[in-house]
Amino acid sequence: MLEVGEGVTTLEVGDHVIPLYTPECRQCEYCLSGKTNLCQAIRVTQGKGLMPDGTTRFSMLDGTPIYHYMGCSTFANHTVVPEIALAKVRKDAPFDKICYIGCGVTTGIGAVINTAKVEIGARCVVFGLGGIGLNVIQGLRMAGADQIVGVDLNDDKEKMSRYFGLTDFVNPTKVDGDLVEHLVELTGGGADYTFDATGNTTVMRQALEAAHKGWGESVIIGVAAAGAEISTRPFQLVTGRVWRGTAFGGAKGRTDVPQIVDWYMGGKIEIDPMITHKLTLDEINHGFDLMHEGKSIRAVVEF
Amino acid sequence: MLEVGEGVTTLEVGDHVIPLYTPECRQCEYCLSGKTNLCQAIRVTQGKGLMPDGTTRFSMLDGTPIYHYMGCSTFANHTVVPEIALAKVRKDAPFDKICYIGCGVTTGIGAVINTAKVEIGARCVVFGLGGIGLNVIQGLRMAGADQIVGVDLNDDKEKMSRYFGLTDFVNPTKVDGDLVEHLVELTGGGADYTFDATGNTTVMRQALEAAHKGWGESVIIGVAAAGAEISTRPFQLVTGRVWRGTAFGGAKGRTDVPQIVDWYMGGKIEIDPMITHKLTLDEINHGFDLMHEGKSIRAVVEF
Repeated sequence: MLEVGEGVTTLEVGDHVIPLYTPECRQCEYCLSGKTNLCQAIRVTQGKGLMPDGTTRFSMLDGTPIYHYMGCSTFANHTVVPEIALAKVRKDAPFDKICYIGCGVTTGIGAVINTAKVEIGARCVVFGLGGIGLNVIQGLRMAGADQIVGVDLNDDKEKMSRYFGLTDFVNPTKVDGDLVEHLVELTGGGADYTFDATGNTTVMRQALEAAHKGWGESVIIGVAAAGAEISTRPFQLVTGRVWRGTAFGGAKGRTDVPQIVDWYMGGKIEIDPMITHKLTLDEINHGFDLMHEGKSIRAVVEF
Repeated sequence: MLEVGEGVTTLEVGDHVIPLYTPECRQCEYCLSGKTNLCQAIRVTQGKGLMPDGTTRFSMLDGTPIYHYMGCSTFANHTVVPEIALAKVRKDAPFDKICYIGCGVTTGIGAVINTAKVEIGARCVVFGLGGIGLNVIQGLRMAGADQIVGVDLNDDKEKMSRYFGLTDFVNPTKVDGDLVEHLVELTGGGADYTFDATGNTTVMRQALEAAHKGWGESVIIGVAAAGAEISTRPFQLVTGRVWRGTAFGGAKGRTDVPQIVDWYMGGKIEIDPMITHKLTLDEINHGFDLMHEGKSIRAVVEF
């Protein structure tokens, strides 16, 4: 924190913070429900790229306004963020690692802990072994899952996934016959919990149908293309499967993010191996290329 | 019970019983999971219309075998049923009323109590106000729901639904604009729980999307046409809605059905007004006509 605005009571200059695209006001109907992390306090203005007072705090040199991006605008040297969208974290935690907790780490681990509430001994399948999928895997390991099956088209994803706790790797292009049947057999009747970290609606259906009859739950994490729809036969649900989704891993940012920073500092979770690249700001577009090519897990931009 | 087979230990001649199409063996992986009522002990033979020993106990006069129907075969004067598919109930409960607990009553009330686990004060929407929907409504009243909205194309359903606890009746053909938007507004942001008791996959989608952002849960009770599929945008789930289904209301028959009989005998629930017709066996086809025409809630066939 370089500066603190008028009326801010929970933060001061010098604090270390992680910006949150899902804030936590602790006052709105959603925060008080105890059932969701989707704080609605500043949703409307955030959706328009504005601060809660309806202004933007960025501009071109000629004064033309620039809008805020996802409430955080972290592709900038300095940014302005509402108090409720900042998680205060311990000062000994390295910024170049814990920055990843602001989204991917929390989303993956939170999907396991907050949304699915995976219990010890569970059998699980994770679809998509990128930056979110890997964090689902380490969340599952932390939660005590017995079996952690990973599904990815890219064989190169197996090695690091196993490092984080994967027990079985499946490349769908190398499966004889139906992928869902294969996964149901591999998990002894279907998985207790499955996770989609691909954003592909066909995969989301496979994830649901690979869940165990009677009680299997499937969690959608990935963001689908605009207009894409998920489908299944209702019989899949009538016979006991549950279809859920999660945003930011169900985490309440100001409460849960500092805890995940503590887990990282205490060695309960790992982040360093997932930061595969460090780039300067003028290399940022190369970072997107690496991501699209599946060559990076996460690239951190240092200013 | 007129006769008891060899090895039967929990029932004796003279016991009053309700046959169960979903048995409860208390021994299989499913029964022991504590997460489902879908006992699998005799699933394979029941699906083939056979007793667990692979035989059928019905035949034509010339000896041609007749198969068992849904494990119960209750369109017969006498039937043979596996021990695990019989719920023993109190002897003072009238057969011509509690027979309905063997399916519809338990399915509707169970969907509320076992599957959705509705809490006091919830706002709920029920789609389809037939024999299942009415029992969802009285389940919701028992669970302490604050708002119980019923949706049906047939205005004649309103009166009895209100008797059982409905607070708001909606006929979709009389709504200006979008039904889902209307229901979201009527429930103050979406329902905490919605129930489909129609079997129509378009309605199932409406039920999901009328659930509250962040935490609303939708339960599919109705059985869809073969091959019909449900669809929605995954965003509906990512923003916190949960899609579930239920079979026999999640009830474990041998355990829960006797309890529901007690609730009926104690006046906690009502059944009598839902038994709109009594028929003799030779009038049974008329009973199906009444149901298809929406003129009966339930017709009981007396032998």
